[in-house]
Amino acid sequence: MRPQAIAYDEAGDEVRRVFDDITATRNVPDVNNFWKYLARDPALLARTWQGVKEVMAPRALDALTKEMIYLAVSVTNGCAYCIASHTAAARKAGMTEAMFGELMAVVGMANETNRLANGYRVPIDQAFD
Amino acid sequence: MRPQAIAYDEAGDEVRRVFDDITATRNVPDVNNFWKYLARDPALLARTWQGVKEVMAPRALDALTKEMIYLAVSVTNGCAYCIASHTAAARKAGMTEAMFGELMAVVGMANETNRLANGYRVPIDQAFD
Amino acid sequence: MRPQAIAYDEAGDEVRRVFDDITATRNVPDVNNFWKYLARDPALLARTWQGVKEVMAPRALDALTKEMIYLAVSVTNGCAYCIASHTAAARKAGMTEAMFGELMAVVGMANETNRLANGYRVPIDQAFD
Amino acid sequence: MRPQAIAYDEAGDEVRRVFDDITATRNVPDVNNFWKYLARDPALLARTWQGVKEVMAPRALDALTKEMIYLAVSVTNGCAYCIASHTAAARKAGMTEAMFGELMAVVGMANETNRLANGYRVPIDQAFD
Amino acid sequence: MRPQAIAYDEAGDEVRRVFDDITATRNVPDVNNFWKYLARDPALLARTWQGVKEVMAPRALDALTKEMIYLAVSVTNGCAYCIASHTAAARKAGMTEAMFGELMAVVGMANETNRLANGYRVPIDQAFD
Amino acid sequence: MRPQAIAYDEAGDEVRRVFDDITATRNVPDVNNFWKYLARDPALLARTWQGVKEVMAPRALDALTKEMIYLAVSVTNGCAYCIASHTAAARKAGMTEAMFGELMAVVGMANETNRLANGYRVPIDQAFD
Repeated sequence: MRPQAIAYDEAGDEVRRVFDDITATRNVPDVNNFWKYLARDPALLARTWQGVKEVMAPRALDALTKEMIYLAVSVTNGCAYCIASHTAAARKAGMTEAMFGELMAVVGMANETNRLANGYRVPIDQAFD
Repeated sequence: MRPQAIAYDEAGDEVRRVFDDITATRNVPDVNNFWKYLARDPALLARTWQGVKEVMAPRALDALTKEMIYLAVSVTNGCAYCIASHTAAARKAGMTEAMFGELMAVVGMANETNRLANGYRVPIDQAFD
Repeated sequence: MRPQAIAYDEAGDEVRRVFDDITATRNVPDVNNFWKYLARDPALLARTWQGVKEVMAPRALDALTKEMIYLAVSVTNGCAYCIASHTAAARKAGMTEAMFGELMAVVGMANETNRLANGYRVPIDQAFD
Repeated sequence: MRPQAIAYDEAGDEVRRVFDDITATRNVPDVNNFWKYLARDPALLARTWQGVKEVMAPRALDALTKEMIYLAVSVTNGCAYCIASHTAAARKAGMTEAMFGELMAVVGMANETNRLANGYRVPIDQAFD
Repeated sequence: MRPQAIAYDEAGDEVRRVFDDITATRNVPDVNNFWKYLARDPALLARTWQGVKEVMAPRALDALTKEMIYLAVSVTNGCAYCIASHTAAARKAGMTEAMFGELMAVVGMANETNRLANGYRVPIDQAFD
Repeated sequence: MRPQAIAYDEAGDEVRRVFDDITATRNVPDVNNFWKYLARDPALLARTWQGVKEVMAPRALDALTKEMIYLAVSVTNGCAYCIASHTAAARKAGMTEAMFGELMAVVGMANETNRLANGYRVPIDQAFD
């Protein structure tokens, strides 16, 4: 009943073109599982990869900062797959053990103070509005 | 019924010491509402400020990166107060309009792909484990 | 476009019976807004009230503990209406200012450590399984 | 330490009556694990099944639409059990692979734009209020 | 400090082309606030609109079903803007008051049972895996 | 790629002092996995333990109530590790099977009504504000 991955060999031309672009852009031998599952819906695969490619390209923010933000969201949402894949991606982009520790500390603190602000029903300061 | 803020004038010594440390550390004339509400519980106020001060100090990650991570979490959780206050803090730390746009794009994309990974029940690649 | 409340005067017999049971059970002069909006769907109103009445009745846990748990969930989810109404309900059930402060501290801490456990990908101890 | 399932053979009369109603209503040989765990609290089991039975019955919305909405919520919350069970239920109710793909695409997009609306602090249009 | 909307008159050519496509596709006189705020980042605006246009077009699922799924996610996440705008969109696509009531009932029930499955730590049935 | 636990034998003095305080405070032979993973960042470990120790100490709320609130948050967030460890902790503090059932019922109900309040866009009663 669980969706199945689609490997390169089984894929149609549309999916292969996306897989080829991923492996070329990232300089890796194969795409990771996320893309093999999205490949069940070639339009979703193509649109998602196009979006990720555009959004994650370094411009005003560098690649490492973007990967750490991605990881911060994934940890907040508790997405096990995304935590695993974006921890790997952030390390590849240069995240050290010390950076990881500080990232987790900020994520934890923000999740705590978000709830304190909710619970104390703090009104927004005029200066922030 | 709503909790009320505690202003400097009404505060006891324990709260004033924390308020003084916040305004000195941040070089601002007054603390923002979040701290005036937490002041209802002096122990919570002191512990939270101590934590924020330690966690947000630049070490392996700089102040701007930390503020953007804080904002990414707050946007994911939909905490209106925290979005307002940490957008202001990130701008003060140097976040440009272009950086804000890219930050939002990454946060949006991560929230999207987190759910695609959930829905397609993607197993974690051995390489990430 | 926003849904509209249904007041007692406008309500049909099915809705009035529920409103009467709420005001009698809680010993209040009128139902709060939540019920006036649910009244747009009399079946949903009746089922929800029946559920709340059963679940919130003191048995193994007393009324105050149940209200504080309700508030802890509402603060975690950031539901402004529910935070306001269940803070009021918890106070009516005996929550003091000190209890509220400790409740918020636990909610904040749990939201923080939940994310640290996610981010560090901590495996469940055999003793807990 | 983990809660244990209660099988039909071990169950008391109150639980058996609920199990019997589930298997009869759904025309299945046995209840799925969710109900066997809830059976630890017979009152919770009975109330939850009564609610699910009423809410999921086709009326203004057909069974397939309701199952897809259930799945959309479960994917958003990242509940692994619920994703597995409601993907199965939606398929049984007629969800095709193409429908599943479009459902996931909408869920992903909504989770993305929810955060963009949060981050840009978009005020509600008068026309929607 | 709050981001500001960009109206058609102030917009550059890239933004105007997107605004024109939105009003033409949806047959409305003006775009809603969401798009006027995203317009601060023309690339984000263009990419998001392209995604929404593709994803929300009726194919295997009709427009009304897609709007109700969007609303189910927005209600689960507590995004006030998205709840307001997608309630309006779903009504325009044909959602009746009865459908709205049943949609809310399913969303509420799913959010409840998601947590019961979490709390009782229910293992996934072999038949679903 | 997954972070690794740090056992007592491998730990430095700073980490050992925290581990010793945990085992002494809780009267247990060894710390649970959560602390062994946080030990990768000694400052985070020390700060988090100090916070948990202060926050969870019985004062206006007793230890059992605090553990049940912690569990309610963890179930709402779907944190598998935290659900396992805080179910164990709550049982150790005196949570009976009946209390657990009622706790889950309240958590489920609150998660349901939080979304009904969102979806019906219920305005806060003047009496709660």
